[in-house]
Amino acid sequence: MSNEDELGTTVLKRKTKYQPRHSWQTWLIGRPLPTSDAPHQTIGKFLGLAVFSSDALSSVAYATQEMLVILAVLGASAYQFVFPLSLAIVFLLAIVTLSYEQTIHAYPNGGGSYIVSRDNLGEIPAQVAGAALLVDYLLTVAVSVSSGVAQIVSAAPSLYPYRVLISVGLVLFIMVVNLRGVKESGIVFAFPTYFFIITMFLTIGAGLVRSFTGALGQVSAPPSLEVHQIGQSLSIFLLLRAFSSGTSAMTGVEAISNGIPAFREPRTKNAGATLIIMACILGSMLLGISFLASFVHAVPSETETVISQIARTTFNGRGVFYWFTMIATTVILIMAANTSFADFPRLSAIMASDGFLPRQLAYRGSRLVYSRGIVSLGILASILIVIFQASVTRLIPLYAIGVFLSFTLSQLGMVHRWWKIGHLKPGEERKERGSILTSQRNWKIKLAINGLGAIITSIVVVIFATTKFSEGAWLVTIIIPLAVLAFSRIHRHYRNLAKKLSLENFGSPPPISRHRIIIPIGGVHRGTLQALRYAKTISDDITAVYVSLDPIEAEKVRQKWEIWGMGCRLVILDSPFRLFIEPLLEYIDEIDKRRQPNEAITIVVPEFIPCHFWNRFLHARTASVLRQALMFRKEIVVTSVPYLVD
Amino acid sequence: MSNEDELGTTVLKRKTKYQPRHSWQTWLIGRPLPTSDAPHQTIGKFLGLAVFSSDALSSVAYATQEMLVILAVLGASAYQFVFPLSLAIVFLLAIVTLSYEQTIHAYPNGGGSYIVSRDNLGEIPAQVAGAALLVDYLLTVAVSVSSGVAQIVSAAPSLYPYRVLISVGLVLFIMVVNLRGVKESGIVFAFPTYFFIITMFLTIGAGLVRSFTGALGQVSAPPSLEVHQIGQSLSIFLLLRAFSSGTSAMTGVEAISNGIPAFREPRTKNAGATLIIMACILGSMLLGISFLASFVHAVPSETETVISQIARTTFNGRGVFYWFTMIATTVILIMAANTSFADFPRLSAIMASDGFLPRQLAYRGSRLVYSRGIVSLGILASILIVIFQASVTRLIPLYAIGVFLSFTLSQLGMVHRWWKIGHLKPGEERKERGSILTSQRNWKIKLAINGLGAIITSIVVVIFATTKFSEGAWLVTIIIPLAVLAFSRIHRHYRNLAKKLSLENFGSPPPISRHRIIIPIGGVHRGTLQALRYAKTISDDITAVYVSLDPIEAEKVRQKWEIWGMGCRLVILDSPFRLFIEPLLEYIDEIDKRRQPNEAITIVVPEFIPCHFWNRFLHARTASVLRQALMFRKEIVVTSVPYLVD
Repeated sequence: MSNEDELGTTVLKRKTKYQPRHSWQTWLIGRPLPTSDAPHQTIGKFLGLAVFSSDALSSVAYATQEMLVILAVLGASAYQFVFPLSLAIVFLLAIVTLSYEQTIHAYPNGGGSYIVSRDNLGEIPAQVAGAALLVDYLLTVAVSVSSGVAQIVSAAPSLYPYRVLISVGLVLFIMVVNLRGVKESGIVFAFPTYFFIITMFLTIGAGLVRSFTGALGQVSAPPSLEVHQIGQSLSIFLLLRAFSSGTSAMTGVEAISNGIPAFREPRTKNAGATLIIMACILGSMLLGISFLASFVHAVPSETETVISQIARTTFNGRGVFYWFTMIATTVILIMAANTSFADFPRLSAIMASDGFLPRQLAYRGSRLVYSRGIVSLGILASILIVIFQASVTRLIPLYAIGVFLSFTLSQLGMVHRWWKIGHLKPGEERKERGSILTSQRNWKIKLAINGLGAIITSIVVVIFATTKFSEGAWLVTIIIPLAVLAFSRIHRHYRNLAKKLSLENFGSPPPISRHRIIIPIGGVHRGTLQALRYAKTISDDITAVYVSLDPIEAEKVRQKWEIWGMGCRLVILDSPFRLFIEPLLEYIDEIDKRRQPNEAITIVVPEFIPCHFWNRFLHARTASVLRQALMFRKEIVVTSVPYLVD
Repeated sequence: MSNEDELGTTVLKRKTKYQPRHSWQTWLIGRPLPTSDAPHQTIGKFLGLAVFSSDALSSVAYATQEMLVILAVLGASAYQFVFPLSLAIVFLLAIVTLSYEQTIHAYPNGGGSYIVSRDNLGEIPAQVAGAALLVDYLLTVAVSVSSGVAQIVSAAPSLYPYRVLISVGLVLFIMVVNLRGVKESGIVFAFPTYFFIITMFLTIGAGLVRSFTGALGQVSAPPSLEVHQIGQSLSIFLLLRAFSSGTSAMTGVEAISNGIPAFREPRTKNAGATLIIMACILGSMLLGISFLASFVHAVPSETETVISQIARTTFNGRGVFYWFTMIATTVILIMAANTSFADFPRLSAIMASDGFLPRQLAYRGSRLVYSRGIVSLGILASILIVIFQASVTRLIPLYAIGVFLSFTLSQLGMVHRWWKIGHLKPGEERKERGSILTSQRNWKIKLAINGLGAIITSIVVVIFATTKFSEGAWLVTIIIPLAVLAFSRIHRHYRNLAKKLSLENFGSPPPISRHRIIIPIGGVHRGTLQALRYAKTISDDITAVYVSLDPIEAEKVRQKWEIWGMGCRLVILDSPFRLFIEPLLEYIDEIDKRRQPNEAITIVVPEFIPCHFWNRFLHARTASVLRQALMFRKEIVVTSVPYLVD
């Protein structure tokens, strides 16, 4: 196809025949996929629950335990508070679920906190939400994998010394799987998710039946308690701390609001229904586990998880059902980490295309996934696991604060959105970047629901920051502002660049009328003459420059130049300190200072290209050093004329 | 000064005003020195002995001990063989000294083994001599520093665990001192050398007097013997092994023959006399120490040196004179290492300018010394010390074989030289690279002396290789051939390159008649237009190439190009696998294939230059990747047109 227009500009479109080659990368992550292979499959409620709920549901594996860790200082009386605190969390869950159900209907193309904040609260709140979410996805990987490995270690205690190694190995495994590109086909996810739901309800059900029939005792041979200040007195602060730890159960609830486009039409209805089903399952599991943990007097420990103790007590030892429970829990935890490997790159790609993160994060890799985001997450999570030695208890104080911050911002954004909708004229429609505003009659009720959500989640943020500050939450309160600062700097850079490069109000500069060429030479030989011959095609204003360390050599060069120099000027620079680059740069600087606006300066460098790798060490490689040195000079062009010898 | 000739070529000579800047390097090794500062000072016999003899004289610090290490398996009867073996070594020393005295007169500009072999035996023997000498200089550093530290450790046993660290630290210290450039002014060297000679003769003298008066007993509390197979029976093989170890005393004898140009006129006479004086001192010291070591029954050990035991016994404990002896020995050993730091870089510079080593080794650094050679030696010696744990006994089997190999080659070269001289016509002179041949009447006697030297030193090489093979000499028999192979490969590379670049029989190729320009663009903006404006000055045959990942973006680019493209052709390449570089390369290849002989192809790359370091991470840096990828294409020129945004 060609296309000639009035300016005489020809535009040709061509298809490339390029086929990617085999390499260790294609071996590891699979053959590259063409862009046209991007999946367009949608899913219903049944598979949707499987795909999006692993993060949320899996958190019941540690939420109860982490409450117990805090309450343990009370001794045996701890157990009476676990169930009431769980009820409070379920209440919180209900409010957040209702709020998000409204968000889903408002943002049918995906309404994560970042998008809702961006459209309704402005740039800074959006960046805060973005930072909070990214930190949180990172922590989800670290916490879920660490907890998954804690389940494995509970079942096979001899693996305890290797928990950090196993955790990092799992993170890298998940990373590679994601680099290959997991088709969210649902089936892969459905089996383990439903397997987890069934075994968990089975465990809870069996436990409840046995407890009501009086057949359930306490944990036999529980792990030893690792708390030092036992016998501390009860305080509101302590209860709030335990509550904060328990709210980690609610991480992952926002997943569905990000993934609405994956649902089958009517997608907002399907997604909303899925969210409510998930919340119900999550709430009842949390209550069940908390009840049983109190009943059997489970002891929070790094060496055996509460889930393991409940399962062991309920099923009378490590039988088939015990193993089912442990395997299901481990698998769902690892799948939860996998969810972050979908969410983190997706959010960073959105933020990168908005100009808040390096643009490369928005490019799809050879397997159509955001490879750079996936690799970043894998590396950061591995570092985090090593630093915190794969301990869930040490990671938890950093976790959840980001989630609740993003909950709050998302609800606040929704409140503002309802406010804007309430002030539309009847029948009016307004298009925003992420959604369409249409006037609605019952906007006040909806505003109230999101408002309540915002208030309650913001209270949780404050409780969290206060009670967990010294344990590690302070780190998050530093990281999020720093991240926001970095985002702003990056954004400013891209914006300035775009402005500087913009062609608006750009008058073409006058054409270049004089073109000076400088050829640094190390001798007079075929390579030099090749560069000279090339330079002759550009301009006649050519100066060769030779840096002289030795007057005898310089004289030889002069004589040869008079024969071979095609009449061009040769400047011999004396270098008393035996330096090559510095006298050249000094000379170029001098020429540059006297330059006129319409003058171009080109440095033509004859560059020797070695045929073998080891040959590199036999040459001084002046050309590349010179290029590096001239890189930051404005408007000096460096041309390498290669000469290969083979 | 300018100079116009018939071709109209202008040659300008300029002095640069460039003054080197301060940096951590100038802080460490001093301000750069101009070439005109090179020293031209010469020295007489007194200072000459000080400058050139530290390597040779210092070897008495370990030669006797290393003989004892071998003989120790014989038990107490070992001591009766030490003195006779030392006599044999002194005999060998006498022959080698006589031979070298002749070499000095023959090569007044310096007659190291490499030069003598090169001029008389050919390329391969010269390379063997070069390899042997380089290996030997390296070992001199490792052995001397290790032995010096062994003296320190003998005097202060608590430092024993840190001996490797101290040794490496000393090597790096000597390296830095040499990088600063030691002016061989002699004074610095004179004091410690003469201090060593005096204290050593004092110790030996005192020992001899006390032994003859019967006042000298055996070593009190000697270190424990570390030999396992004690009680082995006497054999010729064992004696030859001990003899081989003892020949390490003769390392460094060749130093003066390298350094003749440093002597005051009549330099060959001065140098020859200095050599003979040095040999006398060395021989008498060796005999004295060997006698005393046997007399006091010194025990060879890693924890206390034989010198320390002799000094301690002679001076009745660790008094002032003991400390004098130990300090003098340590200092001379470290100065011996320092000598290698002069010899190794000098030889490698000669070999580099002959094209057998990377050319950079022949460049003088900022302080007028061969910095690269100095740094290489420092690093290699440190590695050697770490591998051999600063143990002289473990290093000795590798040592001296190289010295004797170079002795042999040097003597053989001299034999051939006398033969050539003998066949000159009377009064005829012939100039060789390193010396001038003039007919001499007594050439047959001189040939005989060098011939005897060659035979005896070659016998030592064979004895050494046989008796020490399994202890480590095998390593040297591998390294020397490998080094020779590397030298030949390097030489071939430079020779081929010179031939390919030579202007002999070079017909100027026809000038370039068509110049095609390809501009890869990532969008249409000021940076792109700057590159386009630049390209316009080179040629009108311009094609812009845009790699399209997204049809919507491609359409935008097309529209902008029609406005701003200055009528140039635009090719839009579709990239189904979302790759940037590969489709571009494919396109360039295609153009390249259709190129005519007189056609030039230039790729003009608009290169974004970030102002801040961190900005680099925000850009894909296509330009540098492209340059790397195109580097190995023949005759495709890559031009970067930088656009800085500030």
